[in-house]
Amino acid sequence: MKTLSDVFEHTLEDIYYAENALTKALPKAQKAAQHPELKDALSSHLGETKEHIKTLEKVFETLGRGAAGEKCPAIEGLIEEADDVIGEASDDARDAALIGCCQAIEHYEISRYGSLREWAKVLGNTEAHDLLGTILDQEKAANNKLTHLAVSMVNQTADA
Amino acid sequence: MKTLSDVFEHTLEDIYYAENALTKALPKAQKAAQHPELKDALSSHLGETKEHIKTLEKVFETLGRGAAGEKCPAIEGLIEEADDVIGEASDDARDAALIGCCQAIEHYEISRYGSLREWAKVLGNTEAHDLLGTILDQEKAANNKLTHLAVSMVNQTADA
Repeated sequence: MKTLSDVFEHTLEDIYYAENALTKALPKAQKAAQHPELKDALSSHLGETKEHIKTLEKVFETLGRGAAGEKCPAIEGLIEEADDVIGEASDDARDAALIGCCQAIEHYEISRYGSLREWAKVLGNTEAHDLLGTILDQEKAANNKLTHLAVSMVNQTADA
Repeated sequence: MKTLSDVFEHTLEDIYYAENALTKALPKAQKAAQHPELKDALSSHLGETKEHIKTLEKVFETLGRGAAGEKCPAIEGLIEEADDVIGEASDDARDAALIGCCQAIEHYEISRYGSLREWAKVLGNTEAHDLLGTILDQEKAANNKLTHLAVSMVNQTADA
């Protein structure tokens, strides 16, 4: 990687890998969740994640190439942390811990899409900038929804 | 983990491990950075990280126990991603990519301290709530500083 274009493309491959990995991880998290509201939130985020993959494919198109993922150790570690929680926590404690792990994943995505969107702007790739901005907004909204669920419900129950 | 107390303690051990791992990773990142402003920012964040470790030890004290870390796969993956960038990117592209990785790490910490602070509140541990809130504010400020550096300087140079 010698130019900002290289960094952009490399990070795009990373997040493409990450979103694909999440389509496999989210159903496990949804199954492990106790609260119906949390199950619903994870299910609806799985749908969004599949849309993000299609949007990322459009971003790859703006570069005149096909989509490809590159193994991303960060998302692997974040998913491993969520898997550990599913294995080690029970009942309402599991929901609180699981939301925490999902929010760590959302924050990872928010940081990567934030960088990618800014880089697209500097590179003059307006179409990619707009596509990435759409995903970024959805990731922020998903994170806010999880905060709301944690604060309003799960943490209180886990402490009961 | 059966209660919110268990989840709190487990996540505290995770972030204690993560902060300690960062005291080893940050000097490498600082050495690899090109821009003096980025070197300075990473150096000053290393100082803050060491303070966060001391503050976390006070949080462990509020639980009537000593501090201990538990291996945290998420931070391992995030640091591995930064190490890959240091190895694979050169010159200004490296600075842009490195800031991206550092922001992913900041976002990880922001999400974990956000959860921990909220859990401390639900658990009625006011002292821990305040201590964790102090760290959270510093992590947010560190992330904003990196955004400012990226937008104002590094991304422009990397595209030159």
